[in-house]
Amino acid sequence: MNKKLYTIGKSVERIDAPDKALGKAMFVNDMKFHNMLYGKVVISSYPNAKLLNIDIKEAKKIKGVKAILTYKDILGENQVGCVFTDQPLLVSESIRFIGDAIALIAAETPELCEEAASKINIIVEELDGVFSIAESRQKDATLVHKDKEDNIACKYQIYKGDIEKEFENADIIIEEEFYVAHQEHCYLEPQGTIVIPESNGNFIIYASMQCPFYVQKAVARVLGVPFNRIRVIQTITGGGFGGKEDIPNEMCSRAALLANATGCPVKLILTREEDFILTSKRHPIYMKYKVGATKDGKLISLKSELYSDCGAYASLSPIVLFRATVHAPGPYIIPNVQVNTYGMYTNHPPTGAFRGFGTPQVNFAIESIIDILAEQLNIDPLEIRLKNGLRKGTYTATNQLLDDSVGFIETLEKAKEISNWDILRKKYLIENKNKKKKLGIGISAMYYGMTLGAMGWFLDAAGALMQVYQDASVILFIGGIDMGQGAETVLTQIAAESLGINMKRIRIQRPDTAIVPDSGPTVASRTTVTSGNAIVIAANKLKNQLLTFVAEQLQVPFEELELEDEKVLHNGQEKMTFTDLIQKAYMNNINLEAEGWSVLPEVKWDLETGIGDAYYVYCYGAHIAIVEVDTETGIVSVLKVIASHDIGKAINPEQVKAQIQGGVVQGMGYALYENFVMEQGKILTGDFASYSIPTVIERPEIIPIIIEDPSKDGPYGAKGIGEPAIIPTAAAIANAIANAIGKHTNKLPILPEDLYEE
Amino acid sequence: MNKKLYTIGKSVERIDAPDKALGKAMFVNDMKFHNMLYGKVVISSYPNAKLLNIDIKEAKKIKGVKAILTYKDILGENQVGCVFTDQPLLVSESIRFIGDAIALIAAETPELCEEAASKINIIVEELDGVFSIAESRQKDATLVHKDKEDNIACKYQIYKGDIEKEFENADIIIEEEFYVAHQEHCYLEPQGTIVIPESNGNFIIYASMQCPFYVQKAVARVLGVPFNRIRVIQTITGGGFGGKEDIPNEMCSRAALLANATGCPVKLILTREEDFILTSKRHPIYMKYKVGATKDGKLISLKSELYSDCGAYASLSPIVLFRATVHAPGPYIIPNVQVNTYGMYTNHPPTGAFRGFGTPQVNFAIESIIDILAEQLNIDPLEIRLKNGLRKGTYTATNQLLDDSVGFIETLEKAKEISNWDILRKKYLIENKNKKKKLGIGISAMYYGMTLGAMGWFLDAAGALMQVYQDASVILFIGGIDMGQGAETVLTQIAAESLGINMKRIRIQRPDTAIVPDSGPTVASRTTVTSGNAIVIAANKLKNQLLTFVAEQLQVPFEELELEDEKVLHNGQEKMTFTDLIQKAYMNNINLEAEGWSVLPEVKWDLETGIGDAYYVYCYGAHIAIVEVDTETGIVSVLKVIASHDIGKAINPEQVKAQIQGGVVQGMGYALYENFVMEQGKILTGDFASYSIPTVIERPEIIPIIIEDPSKDGPYGAKGIGEPAIIPTAAAIANAIANAIGKHTNKLPILPEDLYEE
Repeated sequence: MNKKLYTIGKSVERIDAPDKALGKAMFVNDMKFHNMLYGKVVISSYPNAKLLNIDIKEAKKIKGVKAILTYKDILGENQVGCVFTDQPLLVSESIRFIGDAIALIAAETPELCEEAASKINIIVEELDGVFSIAESRQKDATLVHKDKEDNIACKYQIYKGDIEKEFENADIIIEEEFYVAHQEHCYLEPQGTIVIPESNGNFIIYASMQCPFYVQKAVARVLGVPFNRIRVIQTITGGGFGGKEDIPNEMCSRAALLANATGCPVKLILTREEDFILTSKRHPIYMKYKVGATKDGKLISLKSELYSDCGAYASLSPIVLFRATVHAPGPYIIPNVQVNTYGMYTNHPPTGAFRGFGTPQVNFAIESIIDILAEQLNIDPLEIRLKNGLRKGTYTATNQLLDDSVGFIETLEKAKEISNWDILRKKYLIENKNKKKKLGIGISAMYYGMTLGAMGWFLDAAGALMQVYQDASVILFIGGIDMGQGAETVLTQIAAESLGINMKRIRIQRPDTAIVPDSGPTVASRTTVTSGNAIVIAANKLKNQLLTFVAEQLQVPFEELELEDEKVLHNGQEKMTFTDLIQKAYMNNINLEAEGWSVLPEVKWDLETGIGDAYYVYCYGAHIAIVEVDTETGIVSVLKVIASHDIGKAINPEQVKAQIQGGVVQGMGYALYENFVMEQGKILTGDFASYSIPTVIERPEIIPIIIEDPSKDGPYGAKGIGEPAIIPTAAAIANAIANAIGKHTNKLPILPEDLYEE
Repeated sequence: MNKKLYTIGKSVERIDAPDKALGKAMFVNDMKFHNMLYGKVVISSYPNAKLLNIDIKEAKKIKGVKAILTYKDILGENQVGCVFTDQPLLVSESIRFIGDAIALIAAETPELCEEAASKINIIVEELDGVFSIAESRQKDATLVHKDKEDNIACKYQIYKGDIEKEFENADIIIEEEFYVAHQEHCYLEPQGTIVIPESNGNFIIYASMQCPFYVQKAVARVLGVPFNRIRVIQTITGGGFGGKEDIPNEMCSRAALLANATGCPVKLILTREEDFILTSKRHPIYMKYKVGATKDGKLISLKSELYSDCGAYASLSPIVLFRATVHAPGPYIIPNVQVNTYGMYTNHPPTGAFRGFGTPQVNFAIESIIDILAEQLNIDPLEIRLKNGLRKGTYTATNQLLDDSVGFIETLEKAKEISNWDILRKKYLIENKNKKKKLGIGISAMYYGMTLGAMGWFLDAAGALMQVYQDASVILFIGGIDMGQGAETVLTQIAAESLGINMKRIRIQRPDTAIVPDSGPTVASRTTVTSGNAIVIAANKLKNQLLTFVAEQLQVPFEELELEDEKVLHNGQEKMTFTDLIQKAYMNNINLEAEGWSVLPEVKWDLETGIGDAYYVYCYGAHIAIVEVDTETGIVSVLKVIASHDIGKAINPEQVKAQIQGGVVQGMGYALYENFVMEQGKILTGDFASYSIPTVIERPEIIPIIIEDPSKDGPYGAKGIGEPAIIPTAAAIANAIANAIGKHTNKLPILPEDLYEE
């Protein structure tokens, strides 16, 4: 690791930037194929109903309408559940949310699809629905899934130490309740796919997505064909944020059914309004927290109950809520912990993966209550975090020993220093008096288990395939996707460094399930680590193949050779260029291709007690927000966010900073702007006119701080940044607001009406 | 090798047969892309001329014509020479044959292309041309390439022993001259490609072809871009016979220029008539032979001079004529050998690769002269071959020790037995007397150096990529192509056997240069061996990965485990099914992909002396033909061909027989039907109305005989059959005709006018 680095750690320009800036990048909606049809999903207008009849006769008569399919036309399984098998692809009997799909249409134009949709007559029997966590939990609640005993979709727990006894021993106990609402992903590019049926019975699937391997599995299940007949190729993806983890399974399965029925390529792209209705959201969670501490602020006991709205189907809830459970106690040393988490079915849209994956919610709760505790004990909130913060050699709430890459304390200290924390805390306290516009400064700290962890270890591997051509240009296939986060640039840097060449030689290719083995989903900030490790392995294999050849040619020991900076070195002396090497190797039939396969360290977990190693390593961070609250209007302006993150190693520092900036802005939206309103299962804020997200105008000054405590299991020491960047922002803003106005709000989003003083 | 075989050696049904029989197979001409244009090549009307001017102004004005390109528009190198750089893609100055390309057109319809072509005004200065081998060899011959000293494109020689001295010692010396004419490939599907320019500057090339890796190199050179921007994917290929080795380089480079200029996919498909004019042919060769032997028929000396018509450009002549040189002395023990070979430029179409690759020509000569020698010595022609035939432990004409897989004698003995040789020879001699329709029986023997040999060893490797999906279905990428010869079936069998599974699990994929490394050309009957070996290596890697996992799981030694017939066996006892194994392995993050890379044994050659190991192993065979010659009309009917081949191991015996049948029929066409006539460089037989090939009506009874002398370097002992099958047929027919009518014709094709008795 002390070797000179040529590409790693350099802020090279993003390789996808020019094509995107010039409008040359081809998104799936830009792609056209011969004889291509357009698809449409016909959805329910009712949140809870029994489907009695679907009459497609009139719709079928329309010229140019090529197929109308219902559940009866599904060739394989009518099932698209991600973790559980609780979600039909097309409703056969029970409609469980507005957005449940009832029929599929393929036609020559999108307009014909609309016309056909308007002529499909759907007869249902309306039923009472379940529209809140509270309703779902009621003893005699309506069951969203009739075949289940209650509305609990999933549950988790942690039991560590003797929680009740230690509450008795605590000097101070704080109890608070919190609620966080839905959040919409708002990726720039809506969901979309084109499925091409080949004459030999194979299907090629192009889609905007995060998980091509999930899509392959889902479509194979729905069509009832083996995996090797389904080839999934990711298209340039305009944002995902977790929303393109589960939904592309449905999108592609539906388009595949239409493609199979018509024999034509079928393009299925959602409009923004459809995207709001049909896709999964961030989990709302109702959270009860109880914290016990000593007088001097040492945490000794934490109890947390989480009740989450999973919507109509479990989707990724069983994984999201595992993560919420593990992260509920925050990045602190707490000897006694109890967490009980319940995922509840409702007649709302399913909730799924969203940047942070259940942790921004619990972060808001734990970081709020820590602040409240500090206030009560009259301890500085930053000091109380330093006092209790996880560090090397300590144990997490699930009793995991932290023995590698624990940069938490440094993120706190650096954020404190850069923010002028001590000075501003005092200054605002004095200056705010008698002012209508009050300044506040608040902190939130986070940790985040890297990659899939104990619940998904079986998916926590990745492949890569690397080939050098005879002209010394390189092609690289990866299994992780770039959804806009910059993975292609970072992974190209890793490939270049590992092989000892300039990254300009390398052309990275988007995932294709035919080429790279199942590399799991692109989620959990795992791409740099997992695909990066696979690339390092592939590059090392290639390097070995090449240097074994050079050793023979030059008659020198292999160990004395190195390939770096485009040169073959023997004991540090240049012997030939990379291009010369490749030409010689090619003429000698040396294998110029290598496949890499990386597996993360296995982690063990006890589902009963919630004790174990939840994740192989953690990222840490702290955001400090400075806000101005106009107490007359309730409007909050975020002035500045200092965002400090331990990410192991920044492969490309500017990209890390860009990720942090994006996370902060999205976290600010979650805190203050994004008000997702439903009434009886109907979304009232289902477009960008009614659902506000922050724009460049609202963007605060953001000061990213990168802390590098290298991880032994990541490429060049890297961990991740995609999700950590958003996690603490909302709580930091909430704490800053509380600091300004002297009271905690305990809900997200915090709206002007929550703050203005009458 | 004594393991029980489950799939190898079984005549399973061809996997590509149903789609082809049902018309579902998509050839390149069946493919359509959005915004696709049609391309056309504008060629010269003169065989030798100086290009003075190309006026495209009027043609460009036509609406719907999107691009007209000349040599000035080439972005990279204007060069498409395969071995030498003697062939411009588009003429800049010297026109050297009718078919030399002058301009390229892309338009919205093929009809617009024709209209534009008719409006391009090409001004040339006509020059005298070179239209025969004799003209080309003349001292003051017109030079086809002005920058060269003479018209010799390439030359080779073999000098072994003391040829002149041993001729003095011979009891008998025979001298004969032979001439064989052009032959047209007549693949069912004409040359064609579609090139798709991607918005990011990459190109995807679909084409009917034998050598995707050649195409990638050619297009990269012409466009002036790195290899990793050119992705070449083979489409279902309707025959090649060598004709799709060199020409797709030109086809794809031209379509790529048009695609690049227009930004649209460009389809370029030749009509049958264009295909005749623009593509390479089998080499005509004028051959002088001198053979010395003892009284009892032992060969002691052979001298051979070969003069071949290479046409306007060298194309593959330097490789074809190397093979012709090596094989000129035939499969015999001859202590003293001299061969001198000259490839001559003419103003004819270039000659290139054609099934047999220079050996059917020399086979005709050597096998005719051996028969003449036998007649003169009054020895049975089959006996003289048995007496002199190569066997294990003997040396070839180039002094190569044959120490592996030499089944020659067995092929002769088996053919003799099955054909009733001795009886028929006597019977026909008696019966023919005073008959106008005479029966004859003749033999020809052959050997054929497997794969690329000493001149192409640097290309004699192959890759494969194999992935098992979690549902235990398999995808397999290969580097060798199936052009109709059945490679996909045979290679799937090898994959299934090597991995121990049913071949129904496996979906084989056509080559894609992005995925499998440069596996060389699909020529020289090398696909079963090279791609087969690569597959065995990949499958063994996968099997190792899987059984290492099983050994850990079951806590048993790895060595006691086997994977066969869909089962994991421990000391022969079934422990789990393949499907169970894969599911367990998947859940444990075992790598389910493996890459195979195989390299053939290196062979060494001395270009000066022509001594060395020309090929790593040889195939052997003998055809016995029975013919009826109508001496009144000169018409020959081939009644029966017994075709005996040592191929090491038949992976799929019925496919081997099919190859033999095809080879015999094509060889019969070469012998009797295919009369390629040119006048002053202009083809007079440029369509199927004027150029006859045998049809099913003329097909004789064919009795294939498979001899299996396993080769240590081939998969399951296999060698090859594609080319061996055609090599001896023409000479066997010619010898049978001589047997019938009592005189040798010494030329191919043998036409009725050569035989009828006035």
